Amino acid sequence: MSQSPLSPVRDLERLNPDIDRIHELAESLLPVYAQIELGEALPDPEQNQALVALIAILHELHPADMAVVLESLPLQERVLVWKLGAPEEDGEVLLEVSEPVRETLIEAMDKAELLAAVDDLDADELAELAPDLPNQVVYEALSTRDEEERAQVAAAMSFADDQVGAIMDFELVSIRADVSCEVVLRYLRRFESLPDHTDKIFVVDDDDILQGVLPIRKLLVVDPDTQVADIMVDDVVVFRPEDDVEEAAQAFERYDLVTAPVVDANKKLIGRLTVDEMVDVIREESEADMLNMAGLQEEEDLFAPVMDSVKNRWMWLAINLCTAFVASRVIGAFEGSIEKIVALAALMPIVAGIGGNSGNQTITMIVRAMAMGQMTGNQAMHLLRKEEGVALVNGLIWGSVMGVVAWLLYGSLGIGLVMVAAMTLNLLLAATVGVLIPVAMDKMGRDPALGSSVLITAVTDSGGFLIFLGLATIFLL
Amino acid sequence: MSQSPLSPVRDLERLNPDIDRIHELAESLLPVYAQIELGEALPDPEQNQALVALIAILHELHPADMAVVLESLPLQERVLVWKLGAPEEDGEVLLEVSEPVRETLIEAMDKAELLAAVDDLDADELAELAPDLPNQVVYEALSTRDEEERAQVAAAMSFADDQVGAIMDFELVSIRADVSCEVVLRYLRRFESLPDHTDKIFVVDDDDILQGVLPIRKLLVVDPDTQVADIMVDDVVVFRPEDDVEEAAQAFERYDLVTAPVVDANKKLIGRLTVDEMVDVIREESEADMLNMAGLQEEEDLFAPVMDSVKNRWMWLAINLCTAFVASRVIGAFEGSIEKIVALAALMPIVAGIGGNSGNQTITMIVRAMAMGQMTGNQAMHLLRKEEGVALVNGLIWGSVMGVVAWLLYGSLGIGLVMVAAMTLNLLLAATVGVLIPVAMDKMGRDPALGSSVLITAVTDSGGFLIFLGLATIFLL
Repeated sequence: MSQSPLSPVRDLERLNPDIDRIHELAESLLPVYAQIELGEALPDPEQNQALVALIAILHELHPADMAVVLESLPLQERVLVWKLGAPEEDGEVLLEVSEPVRETLIEAMDKAELLAAVDDLDADELAELAPDLPNQVVYEALSTRDEEERAQVAAAMSFADDQVGAIMDFELVSIRADVSCEVVLRYLRRFESLPDHTDKIFVVDDDDILQGVLPIRKLLVVDPDTQVADIMVDDVVVFRPEDDVEEAAQAFERYDLVTAPVVDANKKLIGRLTVDEMVDVIREESEADMLNMAGLQEEEDLFAPVMDSVKNRWMWLAINLCTAFVASRVIGAFEGSIEKIVALAALMPIVAGIGGNSGNQTITMIVRAMAMGQMTGNQAMHLLRKEEGVALVNGLIWGSVMGVVAWLLYGSLGIGLVMVAAMTLNLLLAATVGVLIPVAMDKMGRDPALGSSVLITAVTDSGGFLIFLGLATIFLL
Repeated sequence: MSQSPLSPVRDLERLNPDIDRIHELAESLLPVYAQIELGEALPDPEQNQALVALIAILHELHPADMAVVLESLPLQERVLVWKLGAPEEDGEVLLEVSEPVRETLIEAMDKAELLAAVDDLDADELAELAPDLPNQVVYEALSTRDEEERAQVAAAMSFADDQVGAIMDFELVSIRADVSCEVVLRYLRRFESLPDHTDKIFVVDDDDILQGVLPIRKLLVVDPDTQVADIMVDDVVVFRPEDDVEEAAQAFERYDLVTAPVVDANKKLIGRLTVDEMVDVIREESEADMLNMAGLQEEEDLFAPVMDSVKNRWMWLAINLCTAFVASRVIGAFEGSIEKIVALAALMPIVAGIGGNSGNQTITMIVRAMAMGQMTGNQAMHLLRKEEGVALVNGLIWGSVMGVVAWLLYGSLGIGLVMVAAMTLNLLLAATVGVLIPVAMDKMGRDPALGSSVLITAVTDSGGFLIFLGLATIFLL
């Protein structure tokens, strides 16, 4: 028997959707958007060709790729592309896009389209979309589901976004322990298909209390007469619906899990977690840290209207303005000194700047260590000493460099010496605060990444000006 | 038949190793480290108890947890704990820890210990450790392997760290297409165990050319008489060994893959990728972006000796110092103006500071969008206009606030107006450069995250001082 070689092989080059091409086609069609929406024929044959080409590309796309395309397009083009995509995948795409983009897509759909989109979704997926859907749509979508599914949607919606209960799914294959593997294999054949990512089957008793798991890897290699009880694994990583999703994701990462059971307080099996959700959690978590450190409140639609972006960013800018004002008043207090030695005005930003840079290095390291679970209370003192050691070395080296430069530039040894001292002291301050800010935030139950960059810069700016101008006033005037 | 309830259930609380307790025990044992290493009895019964307790805890730990513990401990304690851990898991632990920590562990082992540690590892795992091992150890470890494994190690080592070839594994289960599922099931039973994460079986022809894959999910539900050719999936995501691992990880994330085949240019099956490796790639990639933005060159051992940390950080500090020096010279050029209106010295950091903060918000968004594959060449202009719109709004709002404050503080309407203008212009500069720096870095084939925070601050500092002092000199003097 001869086989054809793997024909529609998808390698990386073919995988990445051609966003530029889609953008180009969509842009050329924007002027006739109204006709397209009404389903009217386009008079211009070139535009007709573009429309046909665009639809062909979009209908080939995997929902996850469609999501990337939509996130990469400006608002008007996004809506056009969304309307032209394959409607049967609308639900999947809505699940894949980020929340701000999802809102823009849902706004562009009417009730019938939304109902059709969510019709095929599992209970946990419907629950995920529900907060973004109009109430009427959620209500009607639920009315077509059976009692059990409605209960599942309600259960999933009762948990916060960062709890395991909100992202677990309900597609469970479970068996009893007192049957043979032969029976299990026959039982599985009665399914049309097994849930995604099924790498283990859950073993429960008559009350659905979890007894262990039967890894498929084992099921496939053992003698079919073996009893499940004899080969099931009972040292299982289980989660509770109220567990934190980031901790669950860390457990998936550490123990290389593909799926894991979720049980209630009585160990009754109620759902499962899958690695694909956990990958999303890990990605989002690392990104949230990055955005938070820079003082962005939350994930932002790249093409959000200007005013939405302003809203997402104003808070940290306002905080930054307050801290800058404080720094400004510190300088203001030394206006007399600056009037006498105007060189101080030119040199002071160097002291503040290097403190901010070094403090950001320290705080980034600590925030990362905390995210990885490497920081415990006892380590803080040790790290503080180490970071201060690094600061001392850097301060003496770079402080001396700048001290010599300042000396040569302004012909004053005194200014040079003040420079060395101020830079060293400000680096020590940066190291100390760089360790203490995230530790304190964590102790207070706050996210240590949140605006940490703005906070450390505030301290090293005001502190740097105070130290430098203070020392200059004492020793040079 | 009655079953015992899931006894050694591991929930999140039990999962996280008690690092504080281990740290405490290890610290108390440090004074008698020499005796412990020589295997001598400890005279003090309390220390003996601590030793027994510590060993008991460590031998219970999963290798991945042991890795976290080791990364969380200061150097001396780390070596002690490492010596007391279960030696049969040394290889796994070495694979789990970060590279700088791995180096400290390998330094603490002699040749015999290293050989024992790597003995159980698969070819791809040995290849991963090889660059950190002494040459003699690699040579001897290879000499005990068979021809095929040696070739695999050599193949894996011939790829760069960021190529798929370096992280693929060689544990393949492959079948022909012209057999029935019944035959496949019987064939699988001949294995002792299936490779980790086996969610699909690779279908190849006589020359090992990939024809498709047979998902286990399908194999378990179909009639055993079905031919593999009739149910295999031939629309498969495949990778080549020279593909970029980050792109591969993105494909795993988008298409919710658990494993995927790696083929050579002739489509011959040579290895596979598994989701657990991809999760690590995603985590490391996001972290590298975060560290790079802050100007840290690479992952740093939290407890690295001070001089190692200094080396890891000196470059960006030096760059920062140069840019700060430029900013200082900009101010120096306006010393005459500052002498006349000393208030300028106090107000100028506000203009520079808000520019830096806002620029960091913009650049973080762009770097993130690039990492997610959402940025293509054509979008840059659009985003530039949007970011400048945000900057204009923020500049007028916050500039006016600070303008009024400056006016009231110094009783000069002129200073207030210069403040409004300077803040607006510096925010526009921050937005423009915040988009252009990562786009230009990307065009030049550089990592857009690398030191971006330092670069943007350099521009907004020098630019802010120039704009503010320049406007003041023109309009106020």
